[in-house]
Amino acid sequence: MTLKAPYLLFLGDAQDNLSIKMARSAADWCPQLCLGEMALPACTVSTGLPALTITEAKQQGAKSLVLGLANSGGFIAPAWIPSILAALDAGLDIISGLHDKLADIPAIAEKASEKGLQLIELRHPKVKLHTGKGVKRSGKRVLTVGTDCSVGKMYTTLSLTNAMKHAGRDATFRATGQCGILVSGAGIALDCVIADFISGAAESLSPDADAQHWDIIEGQGSLSHPAFAGVSLGLLHGSQPDYLVVCHALGRTHMRGLPQQPFPSLQETIELNMINARLTNPGVKLAGISVNTSAVSVEEGEAIRNTIAAEFGVPCVDPMRGGVDALLANLE
Amino acid sequence: MTLKAPYLLFLGDAQDNLSIKMARSAADWCPQLCLGEMALPACTVSTGLPALTITEAKQQGAKSLVLGLANSGGFIAPAWIPSILAALDAGLDIISGLHDKLADIPAIAEKASEKGLQLIELRHPKVKLHTGKGVKRSGKRVLTVGTDCSVGKMYTTLSLTNAMKHAGRDATFRATGQCGILVSGAGIALDCVIADFISGAAESLSPDADAQHWDIIEGQGSLSHPAFAGVSLGLLHGSQPDYLVVCHALGRTHMRGLPQQPFPSLQETIELNMINARLTNPGVKLAGISVNTSAVSVEEGEAIRNTIAAEFGVPCVDPMRGGVDALLANLE
Repeated sequence: MTLKAPYLLFLGDAQDNLSIKMARSAADWCPQLCLGEMALPACTVSTGLPALTITEAKQQGAKSLVLGLANSGGFIAPAWIPSILAALDAGLDIISGLHDKLADIPAIAEKASEKGLQLIELRHPKVKLHTGKGVKRSGKRVLTVGTDCSVGKMYTTLSLTNAMKHAGRDATFRATGQCGILVSGAGIALDCVIADFISGAAESLSPDADAQHWDIIEGQGSLSHPAFAGVSLGLLHGSQPDYLVVCHALGRTHMRGLPQQPFPSLQETIELNMINARLTNPGVKLAGISVNTSAVSVEEGEAIRNTIAAEFGVPCVDPMRGGVDALLANLE
Repeated sequence: MTLKAPYLLFLGDAQDNLSIKMARSAADWCPQLCLGEMALPACTVSTGLPALTITEAKQQGAKSLVLGLANSGGFIAPAWIPSILAALDAGLDIISGLHDKLADIPAIAEKASEKGLQLIELRHPKVKLHTGKGVKRSGKRVLTVGTDCSVGKMYTTLSLTNAMKHAGRDATFRATGQCGILVSGAGIALDCVIADFISGAAESLSPDADAQHWDIIEGQGSLSHPAFAGVSLGLLHGSQPDYLVVCHALGRTHMRGLPQQPFPSLQETIELNMINARLTNPGVKLAGISVNTSAVSVEEGEAIRNTIAAEFGVPCVDPMRGGVDALLANLE
């Protein structure tokens, strides 16, 4: 898989900031690869990048159109197809992180083939997977886990990888979802593998490595989410992390998408993850807590983080407010 | 999906009794549909049914060849292909419970098409799946869970369903694996769904029902198995069981297929399952324990069951030695 940059980010008809997380991830984490964004008239959100037509983007050197959307069900809306076809006409590859496959839409498949362009389906693993073995691997591993979905696991993982590299350590970000794969150019979307292979796929993502090498592995879902905990548990077992970083977001009252489902406490989340992590790494430790405090002021956020750090005896950071350096000291 | 009986059970080159669990399930639970078995020369195990050639089976009225094997990874071994082709030549449908698809092997696909025969892939769900919702459903649910894979969850579930029906209760067996689907003719192989949909698929298997109806749901894997715990957790959450029956087998020293992985205690297994089950059913109860005591004498088995029942304060049964009636009293 070769992702060809620079990118034009397609926002479709999105009206919700969380629904353009593919575009936002690229804009936030590889802005040097993003020329701008393109949206349909109904769209009401933006990444903040310049608005470009396909023609303008092509003139500026764009190589791929990235479908910037993440919707429930992962479908490709009919309204987007003319834009996708126009991008192919202009000579751009198409990059998608949806469940629906571009290649299953005949008009798109035919035009891509005719033009010799790539249809890259980031969510669909191309590698042959195996069932998990649970055998200890060399090297060091950190996994982010969460109280819920969309609480900042990917941002924390990327921030931590960058901080480690900045500190001169040998570290690799391991992507487990479509946004992380787009940003880093490699990985496996664990929510899209066959269920028997979740932990085996996670094992293959962080293979044996040098004793001083760090794999910083992006978490998925939450052990407390009734829809997605199976993926979270397979990822936890397959990653056999030496350290967990628990991620959390302020201001949530229920699990994402499930109004009836109560939100777990940090204490419950830590215990549930530590108990389960010990199955494949009895020596697992809690390295720290990462909180998305954007729902409150900077000062309130800092006060909340200090309280949490005191309660659990580990550093508590917000990657977007102050960074994650405080975690490094806890990663031996 | 229409399974055409009677069956010829194919054992391939199996050398391990647990590896022919598809064949054994059919021989044990629908013997009236099984004419006999067929094996390659390297095979060292048997279901106890008569050995038949394909020609003999066909003469006796066989309608389908059932691939009786369950291997890690679910592959179709090249050594089996000549037998599959010969069965198609004789006019038999092929029924498989493996991950690998019969239809992906060109020689098999072509011959089946040429002969107008069915290739039935029990493991591959045909229904459209959704993500889990975690919303409480009506009716009553029992789920079997285990210390490990292959400890008797399906046999316990089938026995319990039969015992309930015998006692005049309204009960349905819900198959979650290929063997249960073969025996009952319906179900979803949960280890073969896309990971995002595990708990949603489990929800769809035991829909809203009459308040007095019992769904007796077949468990999969084990929360303590590093390869398969993700499937077990999604199934546990999606089933939202009112009662758990913990299944166990004597004489195991490590998790199935993983020599380095220690076996959990019954106590640990009960706690881990109860903690996780409470996420979608806070009122979940332990109904009893089911132990495969075939590794010891009947008397030793009974003594061990009495000890376990006393320790945990619930009935402890062996479905193949004395049945499961003692569990019924604990299911209100």
